[in-house]
Amino acid sequence: MQAQKPLSVSPLQGMPLFAPGMSVAAEVVAAMLRDGDVVRSGDIVVVAQKIVSKVEGRIVRLADVQPGAPARELAAKAAREPEMAQLILDESSEILRATLAAIIARHKTGHVLANAGIDASNVEHGDGGTVLLWPTDPDASARAIRAELAALTGQHPAVVIADSLGRAWRIGTVGAAIGCAGLCVLDDRRGTGQDLFGRTLQATVIAVADAVAAMAVLAMGEGAEGTPVALVRGGGHWVTDDDGPGAASALRPQAEDMFR
Amino acid sequence: MQAQKPLSVSPLQGMPLFAPGMSVAAEVVAAMLRDGDVVRSGDIVVVAQKIVSKVEGRIVRLADVQPGAPARELAAKAAREPEMAQLILDESSEILRATLAAIIARHKTGHVLANAGIDASNVEHGDGGTVLLWPTDPDASARAIRAELAALTGQHPAVVIADSLGRAWRIGTVGAAIGCAGLCVLDDRRGTGQDLFGRTLQATVIAVADAVAAMAVLAMGEGAEGTPVALVRGGGHWVTDDDGPGAASALRPQAEDMFR
Repeated sequence: MQAQKPLSVSPLQGMPLFAPGMSVAAEVVAAMLRDGDVVRSGDIVVVAQKIVSKVEGRIVRLADVQPGAPARELAAKAAREPEMAQLILDESSEILRATLAAIIARHKTGHVLANAGIDASNVEHGDGGTVLLWPTDPDASARAIRAELAALTGQHPAVVIADSLGRAWRIGTVGAAIGCAGLCVLDDRRGTGQDLFGRTLQATVIAVADAVAAMAVLAMGEGAEGTPVALVRGGGHWVTDDDGPGAASALRPQAEDMFR
Repeated sequence: MQAQKPLSVSPLQGMPLFAPGMSVAAEVVAAMLRDGDVVRSGDIVVVAQKIVSKVEGRIVRLADVQPGAPARELAAKAAREPEMAQLILDESSEILRATLAAIIARHKTGHVLANAGIDASNVEHGDGGTVLLWPTDPDASARAIRAELAALTGQHPAVVIADSLGRAWRIGTVGAAIGCAGLCVLDDRRGTGQDLFGRTLQATVIAVADAVAAMAVLAMGEGAEGTPVALVRGGGHWVTDDDGPGAASALRPQAEDMFR
């Protein structure tokens, strides 16, 4: 895969506030149409996790949560509301770390992140009384958005669902792909590529979907900017005909995790 | 900092092979001139670690390395050449993990990565007989390139030195900033920004330099493409007048590392 072409990333302007039941794909098509543009095969449509969660109705009122004993214990350890701790437990397969500073969990999808991805910002109902959970199956969400984009336009762009994740050893968050359809998630060049001097590349696996998510989330901005979709162009050589294995394919098997 | 503008990243074409003593800044200016372009204040020039190491002469012949007893022990544990193990020890402050699959080290700069950043590919002399070490002080290297770009052009772009790093829990590498000058490395919006509904953002620190490096390294490609510099445009709101604290400012203090 040749990869020397310029890439561009454009946040889509004028997206509406999303609510349960709305169509991300239809709003993407409408927003682009207002700019006289259309989504094309070869484009990569990057969608913020938040709006996918919202349209899928993954909003929970903390008052509706009944915390059990393990949640109360976790809440005490991390100085959180017991209801929030219960949701983190419900969304996780494993709590990796719980301190006053953070709760790091393995989400049921396999992704590792703070608070199992539960977000209390940018949810409109109530003052901190509601929170937003991750989509249940972000790869399935990406496939559904891709299918709807194809149905609406006849084009076959890739779709990435992105969230901002913390990292080991480094401060701050970068965008990462939590759901993916139609994109080469990992460009595995081990033993296939050659370097400038004709030797076989030893251990290069490029995390394409995560890098695409990183640039898109950077362009989207955080907080009040309200641009939850960005269009990446120039990466068509990574867009695939089939939906592919999804973002979960980039999760390292726990036994192989050298950095753990 | 408003962040809804499109970003673009363009690998610079026609860069030469670099050798000790060459000027990265002069070659960037020359390559852009061939395209009828000039570097501008507000641009972000992202340079691959490899060429910075080369111009700084960080090339070592393995035959010149005398492995000591700790290196022989590490080499046996990880099935490496003792000379390579010695260099990894020399370049590191701490070995975090050593198995047959990988040696994960904390480089003396504080960055955590495989093999302390030592690379055996794309080095021209000999067949695996030479390796390339990281720049001794990548932030200083970035400042020097920035100063030379300013001297050559009168413009004040940011400079990022990028390498592809592995991550905890996720397969594949993404570009990360190992050296930086003139860029807002971390956009710390804790307590300052407001979300769409006017609440204070709780814990958002955007790792701008790493995200910029991720997009640039993706556009550069790996291996034979030979495009070790990319120009990021549209991120001028993150370019600073002074050189700033550098990429090392994004390293998490070990005591605070929640993911460790």
